[in-house]
Amino acid sequence: MKYIEWQGFIPGKWSNDEVDVRDFIQKNYTPYEGDGSFLKPATEATKKLWDEILELSRKEREAGGVLDADTSVVSNLTSHAPGYIDKDLEKIVGLQTDKPFKRALQPFGGIKMAEQALSLYGYQIDPEIKHIFTNYRKTHNDGVFDVYTPEMRLARRAHILTGLPDAYGRGRIIGDYRRVALYGVDYLIKQKEEDKSLIDGEMTPEKIRNREEIADQIKALKRLKLMAESYGCDISKPAGTAKEAIQATYFGYLGAIKDQNGAAMSIGRISTFLDIYIQRDLDNGLIDETEAQELIDHLVMKLRIVKFMRIQSYNELFSGDPTWVTEAIGGMGVDGRTLVTKNSFRILHTLRNLGPAPEPNLTVLWSKNLPLNFKRFCAQLSIDTSSVQYESDDLMRPEMGDDYAIACCVSAMRVGKDMQFFGARANLAKCLLYALNGGADEMMLDKETGKPLQVSPVYARVTSDEALDYNDVIQKFEQMTEWLAGVYVNVLNIIHYMHDKYAYEAIEMALHDSEVRRFFATGIAGLSCAADSLSAIKYAKVYPIRNEHGIIVDFKTEGDFPKYGNNDDRVDSIAVYLVKSFMNKIKKHFSYRESVKTMSILTITSNVVYGKNTGNTPDGRRAGEALAPGANPMHGRDSNGALASLESVAKLPYSYSRDGISNTFSITPNSLGKDD
Amino acid sequence: MKYIEWQGFIPGKWSNDEVDVRDFIQKNYTPYEGDGSFLKPATEATKKLWDEILELSRKEREAGGVLDADTSVVSNLTSHAPGYIDKDLEKIVGLQTDKPFKRALQPFGGIKMAEQALSLYGYQIDPEIKHIFTNYRKTHNDGVFDVYTPEMRLARRAHILTGLPDAYGRGRIIGDYRRVALYGVDYLIKQKEEDKSLIDGEMTPEKIRNREEIADQIKALKRLKLMAESYGCDISKPAGTAKEAIQATYFGYLGAIKDQNGAAMSIGRISTFLDIYIQRDLDNGLIDETEAQELIDHLVMKLRIVKFMRIQSYNELFSGDPTWVTEAIGGMGVDGRTLVTKNSFRILHTLRNLGPAPEPNLTVLWSKNLPLNFKRFCAQLSIDTSSVQYESDDLMRPEMGDDYAIACCVSAMRVGKDMQFFGARANLAKCLLYALNGGADEMMLDKETGKPLQVSPVYARVTSDEALDYNDVIQKFEQMTEWLAGVYVNVLNIIHYMHDKYAYEAIEMALHDSEVRRFFATGIAGLSCAADSLSAIKYAKVYPIRNEHGIIVDFKTEGDFPKYGNNDDRVDSIAVYLVKSFMNKIKKHFSYRESVKTMSILTITSNVVYGKNTGNTPDGRRAGEALAPGANPMHGRDSNGALASLESVAKLPYSYSRDGISNTFSITPNSLGKDD
Repeated sequence: MKYIEWQGFIPGKWSNDEVDVRDFIQKNYTPYEGDGSFLKPATEATKKLWDEILELSRKEREAGGVLDADTSVVSNLTSHAPGYIDKDLEKIVGLQTDKPFKRALQPFGGIKMAEQALSLYGYQIDPEIKHIFTNYRKTHNDGVFDVYTPEMRLARRAHILTGLPDAYGRGRIIGDYRRVALYGVDYLIKQKEEDKSLIDGEMTPEKIRNREEIADQIKALKRLKLMAESYGCDISKPAGTAKEAIQATYFGYLGAIKDQNGAAMSIGRISTFLDIYIQRDLDNGLIDETEAQELIDHLVMKLRIVKFMRIQSYNELFSGDPTWVTEAIGGMGVDGRTLVTKNSFRILHTLRNLGPAPEPNLTVLWSKNLPLNFKRFCAQLSIDTSSVQYESDDLMRPEMGDDYAIACCVSAMRVGKDMQFFGARANLAKCLLYALNGGADEMMLDKETGKPLQVSPVYARVTSDEALDYNDVIQKFEQMTEWLAGVYVNVLNIIHYMHDKYAYEAIEMALHDSEVRRFFATGIAGLSCAADSLSAIKYAKVYPIRNEHGIIVDFKTEGDFPKYGNNDDRVDSIAVYLVKSFMNKIKKHFSYRESVKTMSILTITSNVVYGKNTGNTPDGRRAGEALAPGANPMHGRDSNGALASLESVAKLPYSYSRDGISNTFSITPNSLGKDD
Repeated sequence: MKYIEWQGFIPGKWSNDEVDVRDFIQKNYTPYEGDGSFLKPATEATKKLWDEILELSRKEREAGGVLDADTSVVSNLTSHAPGYIDKDLEKIVGLQTDKPFKRALQPFGGIKMAEQALSLYGYQIDPEIKHIFTNYRKTHNDGVFDVYTPEMRLARRAHILTGLPDAYGRGRIIGDYRRVALYGVDYLIKQKEEDKSLIDGEMTPEKIRNREEIADQIKALKRLKLMAESYGCDISKPAGTAKEAIQATYFGYLGAIKDQNGAAMSIGRISTFLDIYIQRDLDNGLIDETEAQELIDHLVMKLRIVKFMRIQSYNELFSGDPTWVTEAIGGMGVDGRTLVTKNSFRILHTLRNLGPAPEPNLTVLWSKNLPLNFKRFCAQLSIDTSSVQYESDDLMRPEMGDDYAIACCVSAMRVGKDMQFFGARANLAKCLLYALNGGADEMMLDKETGKPLQVSPVYARVTSDEALDYNDVIQKFEQMTEWLAGVYVNVLNIIHYMHDKYAYEAIEMALHDSEVRRFFATGIAGLSCAADSLSAIKYAKVYPIRNEHGIIVDFKTEGDFPKYGNNDDRVDSIAVYLVKSFMNKIKKHFSYRESVKTMSILTITSNVVYGKNTGNTPDGRRAGEALAPGANPMHGRDSNGALASLESVAKLPYSYSRDGISNTFSITPNSLGKDD
């Protein structure tokens, strides 16, 4: 074979001058159907290292949330000297800056945000950096706000569009970090140079942009090598051992988080890939299981301490400071073999060796065909730690194949082949209120006139004080969502044009195929609230209550109505209509870079802030109260038991919400009606 | 009228909420058919100021060409405190930096060039600036070289494409600086905000780019006001006096040269416009003719000391350090009235009051209908100073109307309505040699193989040692120019995409209509050499002489042949063919931003460096010898007298060379056959 480091691997397309990690996995991995009895506890080194991290975490909390922060060194792959927690103990090295828990300065998304984030924690940005990023180097945020129309600003201010990545990194791009280990950087550079040479002919702006991007990717790969070198590691060639493979994969990821502070920085789907290297070393007697587990424990420790500087509004939106270092575990291959390996167990086992933790976001790709032992192992781990996320592999595999990963919480993408333009969400519950009020905001007044803030064009509003007429409301809602979808798509076109221009993810895209599929990921919030509200209008009598401006700000409801989450088609069909209808309206518009439009229903945490900015709704929800997360039924209304609730959610059409549907489900033994 | 400052002007479209400087001129200017006897000599203040400038010039020469240079302050409109030559004497204020003759640091075109230019004169760039423009802020030059294909680099290195603006500012954009005076900046900002609001609908990359550019233009206009304020001038409102109008117009131009170090930074067509203000002040008894002349003298002094930092190769290309501050003077209106005013005389009279000088490049728009007195005045001034450029208004007016100006030396553009993507030149003489040698360079060897450098695809070359066959050569030449035109256009697409991206001319474009016509300006060099060479092949016998690699490097010519420049259609028609055929090939390709393809024949100075890189040619010219400038016949070959020479040049079709045709013509009384 081409490289000595590949000795012992079964060759294939992957080794014949083509980057194809999936083919490598398929040819070389060892499915595992046994149980977790082989797993080993944490080593002394692991325990000591983890104690040091816990101590640093304690200090960080005491310091008010941030222990240390760069104020003058702008982060990039080679901006910092190597950093260590405890050099002698660390099997896997590499920190975001030169010290653990020291947060990096990443102003390319927006200099104002970088400044605010620092000052939130009592730091002051170097005035010289501010000068540079104000006068010489424009940022993503500045670019976006230069271009927004007044209507877009208004929609954003009124929170009918919320959480847009115009003031933080869009994230959601997962480099195929495994390529660094399998091929080494020199080979990846060579491939990119070939890809670049194929973009030839008439030099249209698209081709020029693509050539420049690949040039930037190649530069980033060269920097990645330098970064690894500073830690004494040579990643120019393929990894030769499990330790090298884990280290190289992590370096790829470390490059990404040094370069970008995206809202969600998933690591991808690495555990089964890494199992191949571990198994080879185990077979050759180079390591034992304790050492194997130690390597994975040390990797996971690194992933647990990924940190970014965030601004107040970001923390509010996400109810904290998540990083979404999502790792996709297990799942089934399209050939019917399970993709569960011993390493699937090992990475989950870190929840015991290091204790429960929300990060990395360990996500099991669930299939009814998963090995029973693995299912049991996961179930017990969920019971013990409440730290495992599940996603339906059976739903995603037909669309995505068997080498996809999850960006953030539910966005499936083929590793190294798909990327995403993240688009946050449109608030459908609020949009329904806009439909009733002809686009005047139910909560905000125009500062100048003192009248209700007009956000959409002045559409006809409901003028009668009779009970709301369902057909009339639907007609008005259709018109309002038509408007909202248009503004929303155009806002996202601007955001992603500017993110590409001013904060391009060079190292992450270097670890993608050059001809990548792009998703244009829109999202909706308030699905169950909107569905229940329309159900109330349809099946009960809902009388509008107006404020002094004539704006409908509350409702009097007579009679009962079916609620989403009880497997009742009368209202579940409304939820399905909402999903299909909004996605269809999104589809009508131009999307940047021929991206494929998708939609998600996944407000895991931001439902709180969306609800805060939504008035009283016809379903009886009070103004300011949280909307339900994701596709969840409104809290407490799913009174027919867990199964009926899940059945309602399951009716939502995945083909109209390809970017994912999330359901936050807290389960107690009682919910299922029997004991363990 | 809207503004008190407009009192006394005849209103029109220009004053009815539309920016229309031409309409203002047409409604308000006073044609002048008299002679120059009204002109006044320089005032004492003018003489003293000019002496100070001459003293600074002397010191600059003594210092080796540069007196002072910024090494750490990056130039923009507000980067410097106000600077003066002699504050008390200056009627018109404003310098590029805080000190006269101190050159600004302008790295947006390329940090390496900025560094080289400084080091050429013994200065060292601030390492911090280098760090910023290497790590945080990409430059035009870096962008271009990231994208060039190997073929493009080769064509550039072999000098078949030469002088491309990829290592210096493209220049050639003329802001309508008169707008600052006539409307004031606040009004211009308001107009731009309206223009921006009209770019709405589906947010395609084109619309996003256009909105962002206008946002940047508005920011630049705001900075322009601040810059003027620092000199104690309020340009937010229209100019109220001649002095204010001249000052405001100059501030507009000063903003441009603080922002950009373009190769040619014309000032436009300001003298007749300014005459309106001067005439009003004269009529109102506010100033007398001596004061009027003093204002113009002081303006011209400022234009004479425009200076940029240039690199060695730039100086070689342009045989020095020209700035091409071109001012278009006189011409005829489309209504038949002359556009010559007293101020046309005044600005030319600076050549007497301050002595002859190459800058500003005073360019008379010549028409057979110009007033006789003005013609005589110009003729005498040319005899006395050799400092006047002439262009055919009669040729350009039908295409461009009567408010165009000249970028650089011959590129006509409607002021504020057209802009240009400058494209330097393709060397047709060298291309003919490539046609003979199948695209192998006649002068350069491949460093690796030691064989002749193959630049184009490997086309069939001339293999016979018989006399060259004209039809065969033409067929090969057609094929080679086809290739050359394609590479050339694509190179320019890349250059202008990157110039827009990394070195956008915000203040200059702020002084254009938002819907601007863009010219895609290509050019050819070596026209007469190529024509004569083809003539030799056709009418004489030209035997190829090869070097050890089989490359044709010289020629043995038997018999005579007609030479371009003698009004001989046999060869002049070949020149016409060359122009048409190359322009037609340029037209086939995609051009950036729907720009209108044009071509020029105008190598006024760079013909020397083009010739240096061209081997022996079939016309008998020796390798390395200069090509003729522009459309000139080869030196000494136009043996039928001046008129025949001019007739040959006049045959070149302007419609295929809209960007201009230049003929450098040194005339002695003998040339015309009689005395003054």
